[in-house]
Order: sequence, then C-alpha cells, then structure tokens
Amino acid sequence: MEARVLEIRKGILNKNDEIARGLRRRLQAAGLLTINLVSSPGTGKTALLQRTLRTLREQGYSTAALVGDLETDNDARRLAAAGVPVKQINTNGRCHLEAQMISDHLSDWDIASFDYLFIENVGNLVCPSSYDLGEELRIVLLSVTEGEDKPLKYPNIFNSADVAIITKIDLAEACEFDLETASANIEAVRPGIQILTTSAKTGAGMTEWLGCLEHHKHERCTPVESR
Amino acid sequence: MEARVLEIRKGILNKNDEIARGLRRRLQAAGLLTINLVSSPGTGKTALLQRTLRTLREQGYSTAALVGDLETDNDARRLAAAGVPVKQINTNGRCHLEAQMISDHLSDWDIASFDYLFIENVGNLVCPSSYDLGEELRIVLLSVTEGEDKPLKYPNIFNSADVAIITKIDLAEACEFDLETASANIEAVRPGIQILTTSAKTGAGMTEWLGCLEHHKHERCTPVESR
Repeated sequence: MEARVLEIRKGILNKNDEIARGLRRRLQAAGLLTINLVSSPGTGKTALLQRTLRTLREQGYSTAALVGDLETDNDARRLAAAGVPVKQINTNGRCHLEAQMISDHLSDWDIASFDYLFIENVGNLVCPSSYDLGEELRIVLLSVTEGEDKPLKYPNIFNSADVAIITKIDLAEACEFDLETASANIEAVRPGIQILTTSAKTGAGMTEWLGCLEHHKHERCTPVESR
Repeated sequence: MEARVLEIRKGILNKNDEIARGLRRRLQAAGLLTINLVSSPGTGKTALLQRTLRTLREQGYSTAALVGDLETDNDARRLAAAGVPVKQINTNGRCHLEAQMISDHLSDWDIASFDYLFIENVGNLVCPSSYDLGEELRIVLLSVTEGEDKPLKYPNIFNSADVAIITKIDLAEACEFDLETASANIEAVRPGIQILTTSAKTGAGMTEWLGCLEHHKHERCTPVESR
C-alpha cells in the first residue's frame, strides 16, 4: 500500500511541477520577480514581509503577497496593513502550498502591474520543500531562536533554497546563537548559498535584503536578449 | 486522483491507529508512562527533555527516549548525555513518526523496567498531529519566540494534546511575549488544557512539569482496580 501511495504522491508532485513550470513562464513573461518564503512556524516570515512590503512601497515599487495558512487570516491582515494587495490561501489542513493554489489566486490580479510577488508558505520545514510554486527565488528563513543545527536536520528545505536569511538577529545574544556555526551548517547542505541576517524589529540587514531582491529582479527579470 | 490519495491516506491512518492501540495496551500493561512531545522545529523539545531525563534519573526513576529526525542523530546524542537509553528513529524524510516505528524500536528494550518513555517527534506543527504513537500523554510545546498566534494557526496539534508547555520563558521579555494572549489562544482551541511554562536554561517551571508527569503516571499507570 505504501508503494502505491508513493507512486500516487509522485504523480501529484509531477503534476505540481508541470503547473509550476507553466506558472513560472507566465510570471516571467509578466516581468515580475516571484519569491517563495519558507521556514518553520514563528521564524518571522510575516514580520520580515511586513517591513519589506512597506519599504518597497515607499521606494515606489508595486508589490503583492499571497499568504498560505492552515487556518486564520491573521497573517494576511497583518500584511494588508502595509497597503498592498494581499490574499489569503487557506490550505484546508495541508502542510504546504501548491502551484495550482497560486495560479488560482492570481486569476483576478493584473500581475504585469507588479514588480514583486511574495508568497508566504505554510510554516513547515519539511513539506514545502517538495513543492515548486513557480517562483524565481526560494528564500529559507532560520531564526536565531531555533538553534544552529536546523539546516543539518532539515537539509532538503535549505538545499532547495536560493538565499538563506537568519532572522531575529537582535535576539542572537539572548539566545547564545552562534552565527558562524549556523552559517557553516547552511553552507554544508547548500554550498555557495547567499546568507543574509536581518531583524524586522530593528531593521538590521534590511538594506542588504532589499539589495538582494533588486539584484535578482534585475538578473532574472531582464529578458535574456537585453541582458 | 486526489480523492484516491485521501482514501489511501485514510487507510494508512486507520492502520496506524490500529497499531497504536495495540502498542498503547502493551505499554500500559508494562506499567510505564509514555509521552509524545510535539512542536515546531527549534521550540526546545531536546533541551527540555535533556533536563527532564537528568532530573528523573537523579530522583531514581528509570527512563528512556526515542527521537525522531529526518536526518542526523544530533538530538539522540544530546539526550544520551543524560545517561539513559536513547534511540534515534530516522524517518527518511517523513514529516512525522508512526506507531510502527515506535514498536520496531522498542523490540530489544525491556519496557517493563522503565518508569517513563519519552518520544521526541519530528519538529513539525502539522503532520504529527494525525499520528497516534500509542502514547498516554501528548505534550505540545510552544516557545515564546514563535509568537502567541500559533495555536490559532495550527489548531489540530494543540487540540490533540493533553498538556501544553510554553518554553524558553526566560526569553519572554526579550521577545515581548504576551503569556496571557498565548494562553487564551491555546485555551480557545483546546478548552481546559493544562498549560505550563518552563525554561530548560534556568530551570523555571521544572518542578511543576515533573509534578505533572508524576500526577499522570499515578493517574494513568495505576491499574483501575487499585486506584
């Protein structure tokens, strides 16, 4: 029975990959940068995103956000306070978002009017790693409160990410967090990955993070022929 | 295809429930209290367990622990330092432990010699909630660093727990954690649940937590006729 389930799951993943590929082509053609944020519950995805959306809006960028949750629309309401279009995706108990959910929730938005589309995934270090959402950039967040060992314990999600952000850096001392060890552990499972540190509370590292977004927007959203 | 997967998943769950029921009878007959610890990654299951195992050993109790992880045996090694039998269960990428895994890993232990058996589940607030491991007591941990809203966002895991522990209470002030709101949110999804606060670092709340274990051991492990 297990083998049959694995087979069917693989089928679902393949179907998801196919939808994700089509979605990525559509988003690329519309010229926006799509970012999928993944992390444990409570790592601070919403707090970082709140500050990011607000700052990008002040800088004149047009942004939008999709927020996945099993229950509640708390995060969507928190993000909507930044004054940008936000939609809640209720996963009905599923531990991850899927490409079809993203596609469905974009249907009445003019995606070509956005510079950035942020997707806040369900808080989970396991399941979301297998689901391509058609994003250009997958960002994995690790907070200083979670411990330095998490990249080794959940390698797939770190391995599938393009950028890692160590959040709540303002709490590093209180948590006796060892940044060097954590960075070495991230590097061990995903050699060469860019590692940023941020605090959504103090604003530390926000300039580098916004610079990273800008860099990737330029790199990935410029048509190949004009690069 | 989705309906078919749900059907098969339900079959697996039913099979798990059946194995869990048999396992629970076996553990009860052996007279030990079995505790399943569930939480997000980085909430501090291992740190609390380390301190718990050490203290129980000093008090003359016989304990053992099973630790589920997708990768690495770091936690098992940390727990083994408490000088009690510990086994690692590698879930091979699965986001939860299952009753059969527990049963398999108990086969060469004399379970009747233990007073307490602790199971540290995979760090995940979604998947482990559906899998009965044959435990007597399910404990859900929430750290002050994760935010007060998590019980509302992940109601199933809080709803299926017998006791909730708010961990890392020493960091409450640094995290501007509102204990009252968090407790109200836990109470909202699981009315009447006992809520404890602990710090594995300072030892705060350990007496109440050990008292809670003792209480449940007495309540649940005394044969009905002699209660």
